[in-house]
Amino acid sequence: MTRGFSQSAAIEPGGLLGEMTWTEVKRAAGMDVPVILGVGATEQHGPHLPLGTDCLIPVGVALEVSSRIPVVVAPPIPYGARSRPLSGGGEGFPGTVSLRATTLIATIQEVLQGLMRSGFKRLCVQNWHYENAGLLWEACDLAAEGRDDVRILLVEDPMPAFTEKELGDLFPTGFEGWDVEHASVMETSLMYVLYPRLVRQDRVADDRAQRHPRWDVVPPPAEFIPTSGVLSRPTGASAELGERFLERIADHLQEAIETELIEPASRAEG
Amino acid sequence: MTRGFSQSAAIEPGGLLGEMTWTEVKRAAGMDVPVILGVGATEQHGPHLPLGTDCLIPVGVALEVSSRIPVVVAPPIPYGARSRPLSGGGEGFPGTVSLRATTLIATIQEVLQGLMRSGFKRLCVQNWHYENAGLLWEACDLAAEGRDDVRILLVEDPMPAFTEKELGDLFPTGFEGWDVEHASVMETSLMYVLYPRLVRQDRVADDRAQRHPRWDVVPPPAEFIPTSGVLSRPTGASAELGERFLERIADHLQEAIETELIEPASRAEG
Amino acid sequence: MTRGFSQSAAIEPGGLLGEMTWTEVKRAAGMDVPVILGVGATEQHGPHLPLGTDCLIPVGVALEVSSRIPVVVAPPIPYGARSRPLSGGGEGFPGTVSLRATTLIATIQEVLQGLMRSGFKRLCVQNWHYENAGLLWEACDLAAEGRDDVRILLVEDPMPAFTEKELGDLFPTGFEGWDVEHASVMETSLMYVLYPRLVRQDRVADDRAQRHPRWDVVPPPAEFIPTSGVLSRPTGASAELGERFLERIADHLQEAIETELIEPASRAEG
Amino acid sequence: MTRGFSQSAAIEPGGLLGEMTWTEVKRAAGMDVPVILGVGATEQHGPHLPLGTDCLIPVGVALEVSSRIPVVVAPPIPYGARSRPLSGGGEGFPGTVSLRATTLIATIQEVLQGLMRSGFKRLCVQNWHYENAGLLWEACDLAAEGRDDVRILLVEDPMPAFTEKELGDLFPTGFEGWDVEHASVMETSLMYVLYPRLVRQDRVADDRAQRHPRWDVVPPPAEFIPTSGVLSRPTGASAELGERFLERIADHLQEAIETELIEPASRAEG
Amino acid sequence: MTRGFSQSAAIEPGGLLGEMTWTEVKRAAGMDVPVILGVGATEQHGPHLPLGTDCLIPVGVALEVSSRIPVVVAPPIPYGARSRPLSGGGEGFPGTVSLRATTLIATIQEVLQGLMRSGFKRLCVQNWHYENAGLLWEACDLAAEGRDDVRILLVEDPMPAFTEKELGDLFPTGFEGWDVEHASVMETSLMYVLYPRLVRQDRVADDRAQRHPRWDVVPPPAEFIPTSGVLSRPTGASAELGERFLERIADHLQEAIETELIEPASRAEG
Amino acid sequence: MTRGFSQSAAIEPGGLLGEMTWTEVKRAAGMDVPVILGVGATEQHGPHLPLGTDCLIPVGVALEVSSRIPVVVAPPIPYGARSRPLSGGGEGFPGTVSLRATTLIATIQEVLQGLMRSGFKRLCVQNWHYENAGLLWEACDLAAEGRDDVRILLVEDPMPAFTEKELGDLFPTGFEGWDVEHASVMETSLMYVLYPRLVRQDRVADDRAQRHPRWDVVPPPAEFIPTSGVLSRPTGASAELGERFLERIADHLQEAIETELIEPASRAEG
Repeated sequence: MTRGFSQSAAIEPGGLLGEMTWTEVKRAAGMDVPVILGVGATEQHGPHLPLGTDCLIPVGVALEVSSRIPVVVAPPIPYGARSRPLSGGGEGFPGTVSLRATTLIATIQEVLQGLMRSGFKRLCVQNWHYENAGLLWEACDLAAEGRDDVRILLVEDPMPAFTEKELGDLFPTGFEGWDVEHASVMETSLMYVLYPRLVRQDRVADDRAQRHPRWDVVPPPAEFIPTSGVLSRPTGASAELGERFLERIADHLQEAIETELIEPASRAEG
Repeated sequence: MTRGFSQSAAIEPGGLLGEMTWTEVKRAAGMDVPVILGVGATEQHGPHLPLGTDCLIPVGVALEVSSRIPVVVAPPIPYGARSRPLSGGGEGFPGTVSLRATTLIATIQEVLQGLMRSGFKRLCVQNWHYENAGLLWEACDLAAEGRDDVRILLVEDPMPAFTEKELGDLFPTGFEGWDVEHASVMETSLMYVLYPRLVRQDRVADDRAQRHPRWDVVPPPAEFIPTSGVLSRPTGASAELGERFLERIADHLQEAIETELIEPASRAEG
Repeated sequence: MTRGFSQSAAIEPGGLLGEMTWTEVKRAAGMDVPVILGVGATEQHGPHLPLGTDCLIPVGVALEVSSRIPVVVAPPIPYGARSRPLSGGGEGFPGTVSLRATTLIATIQEVLQGLMRSGFKRLCVQNWHYENAGLLWEACDLAAEGRDDVRILLVEDPMPAFTEKELGDLFPTGFEGWDVEHASVMETSLMYVLYPRLVRQDRVADDRAQRHPRWDVVPPPAEFIPTSGVLSRPTGASAELGERFLERIADHLQEAIETELIEPASRAEG
Repeated sequence: MTRGFSQSAAIEPGGLLGEMTWTEVKRAAGMDVPVILGVGATEQHGPHLPLGTDCLIPVGVALEVSSRIPVVVAPPIPYGARSRPLSGGGEGFPGTVSLRATTLIATIQEVLQGLMRSGFKRLCVQNWHYENAGLLWEACDLAAEGRDDVRILLVEDPMPAFTEKELGDLFPTGFEGWDVEHASVMETSLMYVLYPRLVRQDRVADDRAQRHPRWDVVPPPAEFIPTSGVLSRPTGASAELGERFLERIADHLQEAIETELIEPASRAEG
Repeated sequence: MTRGFSQSAAIEPGGLLGEMTWTEVKRAAGMDVPVILGVGATEQHGPHLPLGTDCLIPVGVALEVSSRIPVVVAPPIPYGARSRPLSGGGEGFPGTVSLRATTLIATIQEVLQGLMRSGFKRLCVQNWHYENAGLLWEACDLAAEGRDDVRILLVEDPMPAFTEKELGDLFPTGFEGWDVEHASVMETSLMYVLYPRLVRQDRVADDRAQRHPRWDVVPPPAEFIPTSGVLSRPTGASAELGERFLERIADHLQEAIETELIEPASRAEG
Repeated sequence: MTRGFSQSAAIEPGGLLGEMTWTEVKRAAGMDVPVILGVGATEQHGPHLPLGTDCLIPVGVALEVSSRIPVVVAPPIPYGARSRPLSGGGEGFPGTVSLRATTLIATIQEVLQGLMRSGFKRLCVQNWHYENAGLLWEACDLAAEGRDDVRILLVEDPMPAFTEKELGDLFPTGFEGWDVEHASVMETSLMYVLYPRLVRQDRVADDRAQRHPRWDVVPPPAEFIPTSGVLSRPTGASAELGERFLERIADHLQEAIETELIEPASRAEG
């Protein structure tokens, strides 16, 4: 496998910010290279996927994009918003470790401001953890306050708009909704491609909650949470599907960055 | 019109908490009547709907439910999370007045705790403003911490699952997504039914953003925001559609309350 | 009865902000119409007055003023600072639901800033709940920081300076101090006039604490708190007194607005 | 002069906590000696009184009480809530240095909790700065949460109830209200007695605001603030009046402590 | 004894800010006199030193400096960061009363900003309590944000760099590290000189923890904390050593102020 | 090179928590395996070391320890407290991205509490970034509040106590103090061993500040900050020294964990 952390240092003038020196960052920021800040989680992903899945996948996607266009990938935020029973199993699983909303919002705001102080003017917040979604907008809004010279692209939902046909192809046994795609076909397939070593293939098994209503309850009733932490059917996952997911999701992120961060900068210059 | 604020005092043993006395609340809480806390916004809704739409509609829905089953309706939270360009037009419209996420979360947590201290053990947080969605879960989670004897139902998305057929019936000119239903067919129809006096019928007009991507940008590009604040097609709205929306949405809220708050309490007693 | 919520939409170019559209707010703000933000509470008011009394009365007063001079009335803050035993009975009564000081201060600051962003330059914070008093100053101060073009009028104490003679007339059985006027002559009389439907006339009864010292104790001793929640003598209340209170209190608010917000604006223009 | 800091170490088993050792505090707390926490300000007091007046006076009063009954006097809080124009001249005077409400509330809560952890069960918060008043209640309430074994006495207003006759005697040229007694007869007289060295006798002069309404305005109009910072008539002050003020105010604090902290403890034991 | 609080009022144009009037502060600030803000603690110092030691010593040092060069000494912060077992005995000793880090940081930031608003442009934060150290930098950084015209000197560690020879002279029985100098030779000696009345000479006794590792443990093991609260050997203390410590520490503070605050100001003017 | 991220998954029953599944974490926590939480920074380290140095080194040390004794290594905190000029160059270098103290403290507290909720009872906070030091104690203290069954080891200073002889061996050109060892001999040597690919060997060069006093100044004078960001002499670094540093530092961490977390647990069981 060729994707993943180990290759990124070769990407120029972008790369993993944590592996770059300050002089390299100065140069990249001076060239208006976009910087991507991934926001993940440390959250149960069933008995077959690692707790870092929500952090590892966006880094994998960002590196895929970084192999196509110059971008800098900032150290991702490894802990995210509290897991919710219906989309991540909730806070009851060992290894699920989360931040309070106020702490996460402050973290994103301060990291974005630090990146701006570093000279970056084109920033992308790339989310993978569903529960982070509602919190990121304000963090971006606060970070950009009083700054007309920056643009922050917020990709809260990493998925492109799939057609019914595409969904049929990608989910051979039927698509049940993105909320139950936690630790299921899409994420397992992506992990097969990006970090095959980390998938416990012998423990991949389907599961589902006894009830999965359109609302939440606190404290969460036991029947909302599958015992394994898997919300639907990872047995349908494969490296082949993973390649297709990765391509579509990376295309989507790339399109967003080009449309909102690179083209406007070019127009402004041109 | 018979629905709305003015009637609610007659509903017993529930009613509008703000119009009840403390002795009446004591009695209702002692009978385990559920209490509903609506969370709205003060946000532009085009030139034809009032700024209070996101607060008025959930109160209307809650009162509809209160005419069917006993519930207490707490004073709703009139100011919500910052408006986002693609679902509410953003913070740039006069009259859009919002709270920071930290303030909104603290408010919901403290009000829920006050309601619990009042003796309520069955609580429902009813949301109408899309931007509030991600923030309410944690507020509920924090409020319930260490309390095994309470149940908080969180209805972040007030919509039931409509079939394609139903969507076709409810949106004769085509359904474009809930995100652009801001100040459009659904909300305008509901206001025709609940607060007809407040709809400026002569100013109802369709509009749309030049671009409506699957991501956000800060500061928001002008082409993301329709000049009028209307995100799609309110001209298709009607009181007749409003009655159907109201019935389906109230059915949905009633079902959630009965399933999660009333039946478990009955089972526990029985 | 002609006063109250239902009439306000007819008031032009002011009115209830929650019932106005954004275009109407834009016009009102552009004409420098003052905006009033009421800050209330959800707090026990004895067995005869509703929990929303501290929110309903300031809205009633503001609407009275809005029938005399153009003002916009923003959605009032329905939950206030923690009730204190000696002025509101404390937090132990069912239905008393309060915010922490930090949350209330943040709410007021953010709502004022939202109103300024909407174009309002003349703002009035109108308080009715005694416990809010010490907290509002800082919220106003923070909201106005760095803004020389706005004026915020803060009416923490809604009462005009009554002469001994006037107090004798208004409190026929003797005036015992504003702190024990909670749920007593003044508030009950005002409710008779503003929301007669909401007064449980058959439950009006006098009460008093066994002890009412000039200091507070935490946790509050039982003898500081009257069983009914009534702090003195509502049996002396009447609609006739209510009319006189309403007139004097509305005169006072109007005078404050004219002196501090309207006349300086006129002078600046003239 | 015999009152003031220098004598306090002789008082046993109480005294200035800052001058006691931990073993002495352990003994005092074990004997249920009350502890007094003064809350002051660093705020202009005209050209004749020091900026520390609001901190120095309550320490002087507490030491007076400590010469009568055993109490421990904790280090007072030297910085208070933001000065308001009508009661302290506002934040514009050099040397006026204040905390935000959130910081002051947290400070009081944490210091009270530290005193409780030290073993004190009878605590008194003694306020001298008007602007602190509204903030202290919640700090006490939060500090005592979940503690049935402590009692916190909060003396927000240090003044006893004076009769008209007494006011006539104490203010020979007429009493104009406690709010304008800032740096005037009462405070100047007290300073003559407690810290005569710190009164600049040659700079004592009367002053008054051009306007002193019953409401506040932000930013404060110049006519609300007397140039000197003196709000009324310190020229009437004298050491003789100071002795009378000190006696009455110390009597009042002593009575509060005995009534609320010492007698209940005795009853509980007896 | 001639040092200490009682003399400071004579120092001109500086002095104790709490004893100065606002007009005197205005004059001092206008002359660019530096202002010193001491940050202390209320923390056990064994059975022989008072709880206020960490506040009393820096005031004593600042007054020593104020007798040499003009400086204003602001009211010191009497409560500091939580005591740590290995450097102060921890939070378990009666009389140790501390603030949370967030509260302390906010306090320092707000007091510094208040001093700047008073006109001071040369500020010195003088720390004596080890546990405060890591927190003060950010408070200074935040206070100075956006201000190019101020300079804040932060003396987190009040000790000059002593040579081995000097340490040998100052600690006749051997120097064991500054962390265990809590309530030991250096502090006891300084108190003999600055506040001899407050040293309980008959209770001076050596002590030490059973274990004193290079790391911390929460909750602290009993063997990390000496029973008496004394961390090493105060019996070696003397007034003569105290004079030498005072001179060296005051020299150090004076040098810092002259180098960073006075000379740059002179250069800027010259 | 064999150390680093890629090997860790093989370590059992510990390993990198982010690469473990929730069932594996459940098992490890159930066996009372200690968990290590590294706290780093994203901070300039001269032109030759990557911005992630303060995060990469503690992970490398933790993995070294994990090859000797069973430990779980939680995802490290990649952003730390604000860089200070004299120990890290300050916030002015591109790529230095920091959190506010309040955010960092909250993050550590919440992650520790999440790890406890996961079942871990033996926790180690391992710091590498000097500026974090003062902030971590309180985070640990707050996280452990009310928990007698957990032990948190805090290694704020990762260095063992070296003898003069050892320092002479490790720093052939002379040891100038740990504060200037930023991006110098020790860190560069460690990076040669742990992540040789990430050292820009051709850009290793010595540097030093013009002035390096024992105090700080805000805003930082230019002469406090070396142009390159290197604080002393990295040219003396070598892989051979790196091996010796790694061994000593890992020994130190291992000893701390064994002494404070493993042995007490064994004793409790035995």
